[in-house]
Amino acid sequence: MFICQYSEGSWKLPKITKYEPFEVDPSLRVFHYGQAVFEGMKAYKDEEGRTWMFRPMENIKRFNISSKRLDIPSFPEDVFLSALEKLIALEKDWIQKGEGNALYIRPFVIATDNNIMANSSSAYKFMIICSPVQSYYSGSIKVKIEQHYSRSANGGYGYAKASGNYAGQFYPTKIAIEEGFQQIIWTDSEQHEYLEEAGTMNIFFRIHNTLITSPTSDRILDGITRNSIIALAKQKGIKAEERAIKLQEILEAHHKGTLKEIFGTGTAATITPVSTFGYQSNTYDLQEQQDSYANMFKQLITDIQYNRAEDSFGWRYLVK
Amino acid sequence: MFICQYSEGSWKLPKITKYEPFEVDPSLRVFHYGQAVFEGMKAYKDEEGRTWMFRPMENIKRFNISSKRLDIPSFPEDVFLSALEKLIALEKDWIQKGEGNALYIRPFVIATDNNIMANSSSAYKFMIICSPVQSYYSGSIKVKIEQHYSRSANGGYGYAKASGNYAGQFYPTKIAIEEGFQQIIWTDSEQHEYLEEAGTMNIFFRIHNTLITSPTSDRILDGITRNSIIALAKQKGIKAEERAIKLQEILEAHHKGTLKEIFGTGTAATITPVSTFGYQSNTYDLQEQQDSYANMFKQLITDIQYNRAEDSFGWRYLVK
Ligand SMILES: Cc1ncc(COP(=O)(O)O)c(C=O)c1O
Ligand SMILES: Cc1ncc(COP(=O)(O)O)c(C=O)c1O
Repeated sequence: MFICQYSEGSWKLPKITKYEPFEVDPSLRVFHYGQAVFEGMKAYKDEEGRTWMFRPMENIKRFNISSKRLDIPSFPEDVFLSALEKLIALEKDWIQKGEGNALYIRPFVIATDNNIMANSSSAYKFMIICSPVQSYYSGSIKVKIEQHYSRSANGGYGYAKASGNYAGQFYPTKIAIEEGFQQIIWTDSEQHEYLEEAGTMNIFFRIHNTLITSPTSDRILDGITRNSIIALAKQKGIKAEERAIKLQEILEAHHKGTLKEIFGTGTAATITPVSTFGYQSNTYDLQEQQDSYANMFKQLITDIQYNRAEDSFGWRYLVK
Repeated sequence: MFICQYSEGSWKLPKITKYEPFEVDPSLRVFHYGQAVFEGMKAYKDEEGRTWMFRPMENIKRFNISSKRLDIPSFPEDVFLSALEKLIALEKDWIQKGEGNALYIRPFVIATDNNIMANSSSAYKFMIICSPVQSYYSGSIKVKIEQHYSRSANGGYGYAKASGNYAGQFYPTKIAIEEGFQQIIWTDSEQHEYLEEAGTMNIFFRIHNTLITSPTSDRILDGITRNSIIALAKQKGIKAEERAIKLQEILEAHHKGTLKEIFGTGTAATITPVSTFGYQSNTYDLQEQQDSYANMFKQLITDIQYNRAEDSFGWRYLVK
């Protein structure tokens, strides 16, 4: 693992050590006030055994955007990138070749002052840990359109990959799971009228042959997979709209048979098709499409990630 | 300190140990997904040297209300109360007599699974730590009425004393401090039209001789000091309204000279008068009142806390 400490106004000398526990004080600031930010990224192995990251600078930049909102000092981009490279180079023998296999990489930072004053910490610990993974979800999922709970507010920190955004999702998600779903599609906190994103995925809707996804905002994580899908859609000549999506519009499109697909996008599962969505006490099924966009985009993006296709956007990053 | 671990569906045998650090894994669930809840309470010493808690069952109940929203198993009320009693009995020699002196008590619970799966932990650590304190704020404060950032959303977990509610406040509060204020008064996330609460205090407005405070909701912590002030006001024949408070109403009352006082209430400082509030680029000063409600209520409540007055509500709890 990689570790770097912040104190007295600066990041100290980083080091790579073996994965090991560390000592903390019960008053550790992050336990009490949740000042913590993380990222989730993957490294992939191609058929020749070379290891690739996917758009790592996007994660690095987003990490610092998140940190800013949580009043955590930003981590130097160059040190971050070389930390990733060194760590992955050390760990790459753990990565299996083949679709779905990857090294999951988790950079995170936590507030480490040892007192419970309710303000920003003066000390932080930045770490990167990783572990080999296989594909996260298999197959399609059932999602519940949430009408009571909310994930985040205008003016809040929903756009940050901060720990507090996840803690609040567990209880509503547990209820959804008890009702037979796997995940929630969050709606706006005001009227629960607009479809926003899922717990760890952005959401795309396909009406006729147009893709629609919520614009990013204070409330929505600016997903790197989302951004990549939009770019790929444009390249393929598929219309991709970033605009507010009314629940009502989706219900009507389903009714008329023009709602062809819903899928989630995120680093963990790349693309996850939705087979059923639930709203109030009804469930709505989606037929599998012959020309599934979910499948097509999954193929396109994983071909780039695993170095099986040309990388016209320059998204791949070789780990030497 | 008091410590009790949860695993395999139940709380294990609690123990009291000396205050000491403990080992954690870098994948500790709370670092990544912020599943953490806390309470803040105080024990006071009277002139005879006896030690008192103030409405401890309210904190215990709120702790479990918070935990439920964060999908953390509730902690048995009776074990909680006796833990507080035992711990305070051990620590009571640290408490000084006299106004402002107290033992600050911090019960908290953190998620302790050692993996980064984005769901509720199966293991938790519940702890109580404490330390002697003196009065938190001295004098009055300047507050900024926030018009851009928000503390929480409808359907969110603002009503819970959960770590993630505090992390999001630090950055906006830092900006407010740079502008010359000490704290923020949060407004609703939709239109920033209604005045809600401060970072660690509920807020009361006095117009003429009527007190007004925001009703509790999804977004607002149900403060025990707030609740006590409302009860004391009723006892004293002072009208106390719990209703939505428009910023506009407060500005107009200030303009007309009927806005007499603003004060915050919370365990840390009991009652904190506001001398100035800022809205957009204006600041509005409040004159000190001869018949200050802030002073009167502070006297009334601390007289009960320090066993200097009759306790007609049964709020004091003797630690044996
Ligand atoms: C809340 C949320 N939305 C969306 C995403 C998808 O983002 P990305 O495609 O960058 O992985 C994630 C996770 O990564 C997330 O946590
Ligand atoms: C957000 C918030 N509001 C209000 C309060 C006041 O609550 P209480 O009077 O129970 O201490 C607190 C702190 O204790 C708080 O953290």
